[in-house]
Amino acid sequence: MANLRIGVIGCGMIGREHIKRLHYRLQGSEVTAVCDVVEEGAKKGAALVNGDVAVYTDIQAIVNDANVDALVVTTPGFAHKEAVLAAIKAGKPVFCEKPLCTTAADCKEIVDAEIASGKHLVQVGFMRRYDRGYRQVKELLDSGDFGSPLVVKCTHRAISVDDAYTTEMAITDTAIHEIDCLPWLIDDEWDKVQCILGKDTSAAHKGLRDPQIMIMTTKKGVTVILEVYVNCKFGYDINCEVVCEDGVVNLPCPSFPTVRKDNKISTAIEQNWILRFIDSYDVELQEWLDDAKKGVVSGPTAWDGYVAELTADALVKAQKAGTIEKVATGGIPAFYKK
Amino acid sequence: MANLRIGVIGCGMIGREHIKRLHYRLQGSEVTAVCDVVEEGAKKGAALVNGDVAVYTDIQAIVNDANVDALVVTTPGFAHKEAVLAAIKAGKPVFCEKPLCTTAADCKEIVDAEIASGKHLVQVGFMRRYDRGYRQVKELLDSGDFGSPLVVKCTHRAISVDDAYTTEMAITDTAIHEIDCLPWLIDDEWDKVQCILGKDTSAAHKGLRDPQIMIMTTKKGVTVILEVYVNCKFGYDINCEVVCEDGVVNLPCPSFPTVRKDNKISTAIEQNWILRFIDSYDVELQEWLDDAKKGVVSGPTAWDGYVAELTADALVKAQKAGTIEKVATGGIPAFYKK
Amino acid sequence: MANLRIGVIGCGMIGREHIKRLHYRLQGSEVTAVCDVVEEGAKKGAALVNGDVAVYTDIQAIVNDANVDALVVTTPGFAHKEAVLAAIKAGKPVFCEKPLCTTAADCKEIVDAEIASGKHLVQVGFMRRYDRGYRQVKELLDSGDFGSPLVVKCTHRAISVDDAYTTEMAITDTAIHEIDCLPWLIDDEWDKVQCILGKDTSAAHKGLRDPQIMIMTTKKGVTVILEVYVNCKFGYDINCEVVCEDGVVNLPCPSFPTVRKDNKISTAIEQNWILRFIDSYDVELQEWLDDAKKGVVSGPTAWDGYVAELTADALVKAQKAGTIEKVATGGIPAFYKK
Amino acid sequence: MANLRIGVIGCGMIGREHIKRLHYRLQGSEVTAVCDVVEEGAKKGAALVNGDVAVYTDIQAIVNDANVDALVVTTPGFAHKEAVLAAIKAGKPVFCEKPLCTTAADCKEIVDAEIASGKHLVQVGFMRRYDRGYRQVKELLDSGDFGSPLVVKCTHRAISVDDAYTTEMAITDTAIHEIDCLPWLIDDEWDKVQCILGKDTSAAHKGLRDPQIMIMTTKKGVTVILEVYVNCKFGYDINCEVVCEDGVVNLPCPSFPTVRKDNKISTAIEQNWILRFIDSYDVELQEWLDDAKKGVVSGPTAWDGYVAELTADALVKAQKAGTIEKVATGGIPAFYKK
Repeated sequence: MANLRIGVIGCGMIGREHIKRLHYRLQGSEVTAVCDVVEEGAKKGAALVNGDVAVYTDIQAIVNDANVDALVVTTPGFAHKEAVLAAIKAGKPVFCEKPLCTTAADCKEIVDAEIASGKHLVQVGFMRRYDRGYRQVKELLDSGDFGSPLVVKCTHRAISVDDAYTTEMAITDTAIHEIDCLPWLIDDEWDKVQCILGKDTSAAHKGLRDPQIMIMTTKKGVTVILEVYVNCKFGYDINCEVVCEDGVVNLPCPSFPTVRKDNKISTAIEQNWILRFIDSYDVELQEWLDDAKKGVVSGPTAWDGYVAELTADALVKAQKAGTIEKVATGGIPAFYKK
Repeated sequence: MANLRIGVIGCGMIGREHIKRLHYRLQGSEVTAVCDVVEEGAKKGAALVNGDVAVYTDIQAIVNDANVDALVVTTPGFAHKEAVLAAIKAGKPVFCEKPLCTTAADCKEIVDAEIASGKHLVQVGFMRRYDRGYRQVKELLDSGDFGSPLVVKCTHRAISVDDAYTTEMAITDTAIHEIDCLPWLIDDEWDKVQCILGKDTSAAHKGLRDPQIMIMTTKKGVTVILEVYVNCKFGYDINCEVVCEDGVVNLPCPSFPTVRKDNKISTAIEQNWILRFIDSYDVELQEWLDDAKKGVVSGPTAWDGYVAELTADALVKAQKAGTIEKVATGGIPAFYKK
Repeated sequence: MANLRIGVIGCGMIGREHIKRLHYRLQGSEVTAVCDVVEEGAKKGAALVNGDVAVYTDIQAIVNDANVDALVVTTPGFAHKEAVLAAIKAGKPVFCEKPLCTTAADCKEIVDAEIASGKHLVQVGFMRRYDRGYRQVKELLDSGDFGSPLVVKCTHRAISVDDAYTTEMAITDTAIHEIDCLPWLIDDEWDKVQCILGKDTSAAHKGLRDPQIMIMTTKKGVTVILEVYVNCKFGYDINCEVVCEDGVVNLPCPSFPTVRKDNKISTAIEQNWILRFIDSYDVELQEWLDDAKKGVVSGPTAWDGYVAELTADALVKAQKAGTIEKVATGGIPAFYKK
Repeated sequence: MANLRIGVIGCGMIGREHIKRLHYRLQGSEVTAVCDVVEEGAKKGAALVNGDVAVYTDIQAIVNDANVDALVVTTPGFAHKEAVLAAIKAGKPVFCEKPLCTTAADCKEIVDAEIASGKHLVQVGFMRRYDRGYRQVKELLDSGDFGSPLVVKCTHRAISVDDAYTTEMAITDTAIHEIDCLPWLIDDEWDKVQCILGKDTSAAHKGLRDPQIMIMTTKKGVTVILEVYVNCKFGYDINCEVVCEDGVVNLPCPSFPTVRKDNKISTAIEQNWILRFIDSYDVELQEWLDDAKKGVVSGPTAWDGYVAELTADALVKAQKAGTIEKVATGGIPAFYKK
């Protein structure tokens, strides 16, 4: 089968990584066009490709390039909407890095456009669903050996954050990953959310509330407890425990040698999200490529992107007001039902 | 030093275990009198002792026996109040199995009586504080190496419960252990409590809400998440994770051989609370004996027993109403400050 | 049942610990006589007991004291023989700390005397058989779920040793514990032994060969690999892996809190043998007391003590000569067969 | 940089896997020619490639194809020698799956030919050195934090083997991986080897000795204990513990979810070598490609292939005779020193 010819929109750090990934590492794709509003950036991206590659600074132009079969959007979030809507209009598959858009309303516009197009074209770049560990957990849950999930407990811990990181970002930048992947993991939908701000670590910069405990319940009644703690100092520590009717399943941590030294038995902890989830990107984009050729979207859809945004909004509201908020999605459209 | 002469009030199963423990296994004590409202029961208790032992059916009588230096109360809960008040009146140290009394008001009466007596006489039988694992955790926390606790997450899981177990008992019988020992563990006091009832396991008998998630905040702002799950099927599984400013500490599980078999690496889980905490009873009563001789109470006090009852009451109210409830202790009296 | 009246021979550190243990902590015993060649030492031992206690400096005298039902021998090794033989002659049960005697020939003399007496009287103080972990392993092996043992791998690691510790002592003082307990664990007998001296740690004092690898095969053909490493620096690290036909079983380490800190997930390692095996002493002597009253020996027998000595001798020979040596016990006498 | 044009010799299962890997997954290579003595096989291999690919049944012909820059040899072992010698003669880099040749003498011939050519051309396909876990261990050892290695203990366990598997193959097919990778891991050379055949599992087919314990010492005096157990039933269980002067390092097992169920806490064990080491193949061949373009060999050399063969021969001799055998390599030639 011929290679899928990809146009990459946005040639920043992640864009350039994806160009190399799509052109060299993955199977069945080549990058034939790149775009960046800054021409210099676009040329930098193009220089990574051995072969002919069109260089654009205009989104509509790259989307409509006849040598481009599918798009990958890695611009800053505010530019996602234009790129994704253009791809839908052109009837071309588009992989858009998270968030789908910066507001739920914009996400909804994309959802509506995709439904109107009648074609499944949009995938959002939530990569946790492609992590080997999460997939192992999902496989166990789907096996039926553990019965229904009842409670899920997660930690999302990072060593530290810079001063630009705000109390809201604990939801919109950090918890957003669990917001997307947990409903997928346990086959459920968000219902209500709550956010508890307690004692802050003295390591948090002024004004930042850290850690935060988010309590989210699903339509099936599962209680999810998520600890976001972004100044934990010791590592990038992602955990997920699913308590079920017939047992408990825990997400594995990456493996490191066990060491006996200094009166301790120890193993290392991963130090950042790049090291922790780097392998997921390859899996994610390879599966997207394979799907795009078949005209299907098996990864996170535009609807998932919209719901994630809506849920984050509810959590932010709950965080600010100290209330319990409802996540009102209006129900999954028939178009997105699996 | 001469043996402490103990009168045991209540000769049921736990009473008889304590008689043997106090008379034979522990150091510095002998049982010189036993009491049970059922004379047959009292005689059964007395028969365990090799030596002279007075047999009573009347609580006041055993408390006032001149050959009794200290009392151990293991009657059903409703009879605790009379026995403990009598001991206070007689100025004799008394170890009372939990709960101190069945209502907070009764507990408060004991607190007031003890303060009025001017002597530290009452210890309540919360044994978790004597568990080797909890003590290891406390030692680490007290070392200062981990900074302030910020979040505590616990599980209290049991294989199954019988039909007499009610939704309230998840608090009054099960969570009561964490209610007592966590403030001790992290040196703090309860402030507010909440109880989330979500999806129930199909293994729970009709009418029982299980699992339950209890969310409790402390005066210092620590958020405590306690999962009570009494039909988990797989084991008696007590966990406690303390998330601090400078690291995270987890309570150890009891050790079992690691086994490779059937495509798995596995270890056993303890099957019930007796096996899990049996060693704690010896430590608990030995330390109480040693303290009683010195006229001090270093274990759970009448005040702790009162606060536990008050907190459980608040949690039950929160459970029924779906609200967040305040734990209003009125502040620790000077008499009990350490 | 009346208390077993114990005479303790040898009032050094271990002797004094056993006096307290036998008189206070354990059930069904009291110390009625103590003996030490140094009168001052004997008096020190006697002072630990609240009650009448006879003080001796002569072994024969304490053994023959009519108020002594059984003996505990905790003298230095060279004096064990006289004490144990005297006890056998008196027909009194005797618990003798390891080693039974300092030479295999002396051990054999005791074996012969015990057989001649027709009574089971002698137990040797190998405490590993009473460790909770080893017993858990044995229970699993005895269950039949794992089939026959094929290979056993052990480590016996200690932080450091003083300058008096010799290359031979790696066998006679250290490996001696595995030499005794492994045949018990897997229900087998030693056949041949080999000792590999390789690269030494620079932490070993001049002249000491450390680590050593001992390879021992049993009559059933099991291969045992024992690493003795007494300058490992990091902890007292006892491991034992039993590789069987139907799975592998590993001895558990004592449990400690799991800690996340400094980019690591870690648990502590026990620091010395006293902390690691202290609990075993209580179990060991309690079971001996219970057995002694029944006139049986279910713990390590004089024969076991003899075989341990013989095996250690063979290993020392193998260590010095670099050969593979046979352990020639002549076969277990009918008297000791179980 | 232009793609390295690869000729693959041998189009069996592994050959076809490598064709796909080299042509699609890895970066900087394309398959331009394939060869198999069975023309049908060669065509099958060619069919995997989208693009022009020459099809050969003659080894000399493919090696000399001007469109082939480098060779990958995946024929059965007996045909390795001809292919590798031809590549050396042609001055082309060659990656040869293990074993380099089926006899040490043949390996030596290749070593001599490569030295004579004056160019570093040959790499042998021992993939363990490319496993993430082994590399983590090596990184720790190379850091100097653990001091010198003193003892290494490995297990190489597999669920079962078919009837064609012989007692010798425990060395030549199984232990061969440790034989190659351990000297690399600890930067050392083999000195002497011994093989202990003890009690066999009843699961072994008639005539097969299993498990086997191989004891190998290095020139620096490190003692290596390798358990080969190919009917262990429970999993493909690769372990490696390096005991050093300043601590102990253990190879990690692949991570799986931790599960609480059926009275146990468990994790899965990998079931076969393909799943266990599949990721290593990509790393191995990618690094070889990158090296080949630079004209260097940083992986296992022809000399390593020769030494592995020589060591296996010595072990087989030791296995048959029950002796301790010397590994006489004559010392590493200057050409291969790093």
